[in-house]
Amino acid sequence: MTERTGDGYGQMLLDAFEGKRAVEIVERDDGFISASVGGPPLYLAPFRRWPALHRRAMRFVRGRVLDVGCGGGRVCLHVQERGGEAVGIDISPGAIEVCRRRGVRDARLLGIEDIDDSLGRFDTVVMLGNNLGLLAAADKGRDLLRRLHALTTERGRIVAESRDPAGTDDPVHLRYHAANVRRGRLPGQVTIRVRYRDAATPWFDYLMVSPAQLEELIDGTGWRLARTLESDDTYVAVLEKTRGR
Amino acid sequence: MTERTGDGYGQMLLDAFEGKRAVEIVERDDGFISASVGGPPLYLAPFRRWPALHRRAMRFVRGRVLDVGCGGGRVCLHVQERGGEAVGIDISPGAIEVCRRRGVRDARLLGIEDIDDSLGRFDTVVMLGNNLGLLAAADKGRDLLRRLHALTTERGRIVAESRDPAGTDDPVHLRYHAANVRRGRLPGQVTIRVRYRDAATPWFDYLMVSPAQLEELIDGTGWRLARTLESDDTYVAVLEKTRGR
Repeated sequence: MTERTGDGYGQMLLDAFEGKRAVEIVERDDGFISASVGGPPLYLAPFRRWPALHRRAMRFVRGRVLDVGCGGGRVCLHVQERGGEAVGIDISPGAIEVCRRRGVRDARLLGIEDIDDSLGRFDTVVMLGNNLGLLAAADKGRDLLRRLHALTTERGRIVAESRDPAGTDDPVHLRYHAANVRRGRLPGQVTIRVRYRDAATPWFDYLMVSPAQLEELIDGTGWRLARTLESDDTYVAVLEKTRGR
Repeated sequence: MTERTGDGYGQMLLDAFEGKRAVEIVERDDGFISASVGGPPLYLAPFRRWPALHRRAMRFVRGRVLDVGCGGGRVCLHVQERGGEAVGIDISPGAIEVCRRRGVRDARLLGIEDIDDSLGRFDTVVMLGNNLGLLAAADKGRDLLRRLHALTTERGRIVAESRDPAGTDDPVHLRYHAANVRRGRLPGQVTIRVRYRDAATPWFDYLMVSPAQLEELIDGTGWRLARTLESDDTYVAVLEKTRGR
């Protein structure tokens, strides 16, 4: 096996953008593999075709926006169309290329762990498409939340989607979650990579948490869970800043 | 990575049969990976939904039929519905289970290399769905063709689908074909496995040949290329027995 470590996600997105049928293949480090047909079109979808949950979530997005893991730029484009200002960041060069070709005004090749003051200050940080997962793990997640706290205004919000890992009865997933707990990780911390044709992304950690686990995770970071918006399989958490911290 | 070596193909087919959305993921040993959405439904499709090429190919199928790599049993079921007799063989336990649940009268867990006199004699050997690929490689393929010659009647036919490997301009595939030639293999011999959830089949060789390569391959095996039926991307070869051998 000699798959190239590279921009599997971005290659997929570029092909989808160019009208090719692209399927997103995600491989987990226990060998579990899955293929999403609906993923690539969603990454490029106009607002009216977003899942209802995502459309609802946008009601809580205000002011200057940072879209973390911006993919094909759909959130940035929507904010721009509403007359707002958005900065999209993604570690995928292909994703950033697609963003630029689609007219995203400020799309940067940057990981969540590399954000700093140079981006300016934000009113809302968006992490839709399960991108709360980019917090990666409990410790790293807390560090990132503190950093996002410093980079946001007083009325700053995080609007982030996740999935309760306990919402499955699939024994393969339950086994993975149990193995996580034995290793001292949160049950829903998954080590995955995206594969597309001969390219694979590097392995990365992606975190799924229940609302209760999220409340525990954010404790002491300056954020509180102000609201959750529910759907069948995922939810959106609206985090706001705690008073008097 | 600890994916189970097992019946990835059969697990996929069972899920598709049970109405779940199943995507067929095929991984090649150079790391190239692809996902087929249309594959699983085709494996279970009734005759009227088959690709036109496969429907045309069935005009050349007569008498007692051996379906090699019978998958979900669509060829066997169609032969049965026409009042004929068919034996389906597949190395996937899940595929054989699906065949039986769908009413295939004679489906056996057997690889092409394990067929012998005990199956009786056949008038037609069917290898649709690119299953000429199960010849695997030049030398092995010639052995198998000789064995099929011995197991078929005087008017015996092989109705087999393949794809000309030269019909691509994809540099990733062209590189793979060139590497094959350097190793003394036919350009279109691919080493692949099917992955589904946490199951992967063992790696196996699958052979794609042009009609000209096929003619060379069958030379001296007692078979001749009587006819080819063309489509956009694949073709069906009708092999018949050479006279006076």
